[in-house]
Amino acid sequence: MQKVPRLVTWVVFVVIGWGLLAGAAEPLKPVVLPAPQMDKGRPLMQVLKDRQSRRDISPDKKLSLQELSNLLWAACGVNRPDSGKRTAPTASNRQEIDVYLATAEGMFLYDVKGHKLEPVLQEDVRKAAGKQAFVQTAPVVLIFVVDEARMGRRSESDKVFYAATDTGFVSQNVYLYCASEGLATVVIGMVDKPALAAKMKLRPEQKVVLTQPVGYPAK
Amino acid sequence: MQKVPRLVTWVVFVVIGWGLLAGAAEPLKPVVLPAPQMDKGRPLMQVLKDRQSRRDISPDKKLSLQELSNLLWAACGVNRPDSGKRTAPTASNRQEIDVYLATAEGMFLYDVKGHKLEPVLQEDVRKAAGKQAFVQTAPVVLIFVVDEARMGRRSESDKVFYAATDTGFVSQNVYLYCASEGLATVVIGMVDKPALAAKMKLRPEQKVVLTQPVGYPAK
Repeated sequence: MQKVPRLVTWVVFVVIGWGLLAGAAEPLKPVVLPAPQMDKGRPLMQVLKDRQSRRDISPDKKLSLQELSNLLWAACGVNRPDSGKRTAPTASNRQEIDVYLATAEGMFLYDVKGHKLEPVLQEDVRKAAGKQAFVQTAPVVLIFVVDEARMGRRSESDKVFYAATDTGFVSQNVYLYCASEGLATVVIGMVDKPALAAKMKLRPEQKVVLTQPVGYPAK
Repeated sequence: MQKVPRLVTWVVFVVIGWGLLAGAAEPLKPVVLPAPQMDKGRPLMQVLKDRQSRRDISPDKKLSLQELSNLLWAACGVNRPDSGKRTAPTASNRQEIDVYLATAEGMFLYDVKGHKLEPVLQEDVRKAAGKQAFVQTAPVVLIFVVDEARMGRRSESDKVFYAATDTGFVSQNVYLYCASEGLATVVIGMVDKPALAAKMKLRPEQKVVLTQPVGYPAK
């Protein structure tokens, strides 16, 4: 009579233990970012002179939390707190572009208003964010996602067009921040976007626009 | 016997005089731009803090030639002369985005490699570059045009997509240059693009992507 309950207890313990070992015991937590250093940076024209696409991204050296804070704020952070307006424009101020952050530990959403990282998935989605190895091993891959639900009444082709221009504005900010700080980055268009969207568990009205790995130069 | 020649001479004089008055006597000439001031500019993060869309563009105060040189170089100038690569990326380095410059005097093409302005039309096309008055009277309206002939074998939707992202990169550079230098600018999507293309006498494979007036703030 006691044999079956013992087996059940044993199985339950194994399942819990496996969950703990697999990392479920340390669920991703929200990351409060330090305030961005808004007085920093090299002179704009010098930064533009150094702007380039770099694929030699080291997998080893991680970005500090301060650097991540500066990078994300530069990308599309709030630069006018009164109105909530940002460092990058959007058509009709729809603010429809979200920046997701893929790391080895998991995926976060950049909460622009709160300037913090919200955990989304405890999974490394970098492998789906680009075909080249340097994307899959970059310390951080930014994934630009449009939420078409925020775009109002536009034609399908207009939605694609404005999501693309509005992502271009954000991506160029990332390029320039990297050029200013000696980081390596390149924007990636050759991505299996539906596969990445599925991996990211996006809603149907959310679409991947581009990805952009960031890190220190390998050399 | 002398009457007809006299009439012919008179007609010829009137025609020439009309041409002079109408401005045809001063055809637009190529404008060699001074070298861009690549050491200039405010620190990047401060520039990002000041980045904004400004519609209060004064019709009166014109940009100096040096300012125009800096602005166009910042937009998409050559920053690596060895390779001809630029301050803004393009998909597969196709460099398919041209910047046209519309002023009261006429329209020029920014010759990126030569860093000079090539005259295209002796006509004020600003009225077709946006519906709002501040576009039509801005000292300078940049018109971003994709030349799809340079994009290789891509689907029609990919051409639209990459023309849009690649214009976004350039346009954000313009925004940041303006923020650094206290100029006013805003990117304009609401344009009758086929009408503007016709006015500009573009080839069929050239398409207007966006326009962007630039000037001093009115106040």
